[in-house]
Amino acid sequence: MVKCSHEFSLEERQGVYRAIYERRDVRSQFLPDAVDDDVLHRILDAAHHAPSVGFMQPWDFIVIRDRDVRRAVHHNFECANQAAAQRYQGPERELYDSLKLAGILEAPVHICVTCDASRARGNGLGRQSDASVALYSAVCAVQNLWLAARAESLGAGWVSILDIDGLKTTLGIPSEVTMVAYLCIGYVSEFRPQPDLEEKGWETRAPLDSVLHKDRWQKL
Amino acid sequence: MVKCSHEFSLEERQGVYRAIYERRDVRSQFLPDAVDDDVLHRILDAAHHAPSVGFMQPWDFIVIRDRDVRRAVHHNFECANQAAAQRYQGPERELYDSLKLAGILEAPVHICVTCDASRARGNGLGRQSDASVALYSAVCAVQNLWLAARAESLGAGWVSILDIDGLKTTLGIPSEVTMVAYLCIGYVSEFRPQPDLEEKGWETRAPLDSVLHKDRWQKL
Repeated sequence: MVKCSHEFSLEERQGVYRAIYERRDVRSQFLPDAVDDDVLHRILDAAHHAPSVGFMQPWDFIVIRDRDVRRAVHHNFECANQAAAQRYQGPERELYDSLKLAGILEAPVHICVTCDASRARGNGLGRQSDASVALYSAVCAVQNLWLAARAESLGAGWVSILDIDGLKTTLGIPSEVTMVAYLCIGYVSEFRPQPDLEEKGWETRAPLDSVLHKDRWQKL
Repeated sequence: MVKCSHEFSLEERQGVYRAIYERRDVRSQFLPDAVDDDVLHRILDAAHHAPSVGFMQPWDFIVIRDRDVRRAVHHNFECANQAAAQRYQGPERELYDSLKLAGILEAPVHICVTCDASRARGNGLGRQSDASVALYSAVCAVQNLWLAARAESLGAGWVSILDIDGLKTTLGIPSEVTMVAYLCIGYVSEFRPQPDLEEKGWETRAPLDSVLHKDRWQKL
């Protein structure tokens, strides 16, 4: 391979892998420190530079600092989580109940990422085979934001245990727009070395080889 | 904010933003140069360290180098793209036909990313509110892979114009597993400064402010 100007320095490349390996789904380590608008703008612009099918950019970002809105979302989560816990019994239920699954009140900023599949941008290019690709574009924006946040020493936590319709009402999201991700953002006391659910014994990481296939669906 | 050991150096942070801003959906600049197994392993391991709901890691990765499989996928794309083109007429059709929308034969490696929502890992945690979150986890893996690829000077192109059922048959993907993304991977002659669809005049980038809302769904 020819050395090109488009190559990364070792330290730049290391930054990318650090962000990927040291990114955590933060629930417990949020600090109350304010997040400046310029930092927030950088991670939102990173999200906005995600790939999107047909360059349609189907996302919107609702940046939430208002305490009443955050309280309403916290209440939504508490109810949804009580219902979700019913699925588990015995020692599993005890473990579930001991997990902290969101840091909604502690995180000073929330970002809700949505997808408007009816957006005209891109004029439908690339979207005729699989209706989900607009949603997938919005998820790529979430991951860009999450990695940029890590590079800025900001933690992010994706809250998926929510009554979605209730959340859409709270935030005034139009019915035709999909709520894709609800993220809690803030500085943190630390980034834990392992995912929380691994550290607490809920689940283990699969070996990479167990999810690899060669040429067709056949394990290596 | 306290300076902590978890902070990135300026150059590491720059690496993350370079990957985000210089990542391209590559279709036209692939080189035939071989991609070594160790590089491929690094970008696959980056994908495998994506966030996943309940730590379920619902993804599989099919790494395709076989020429016959790549030819079959190329044929699949050609047929799907001819059908997709029918949507456009006049000057729009001329522009559509002039676009190169995939580099399937040129790229020496393909990676198909799938999602198995029936996987037991994670024991359902976080998945009761929104059935799509398993799919979203697999998409986060795609974006990790894409950014790691950029840091390795590898281009990646997401081919979304495909007969999905036909592709699943070609690759032997079980019916209950969802094909999420089909990626063409390879070294490139250059990374273009703009997205291809922006450069060719198909679509423009929206201003960031046009997709931002404050506290509720209301434009800034």
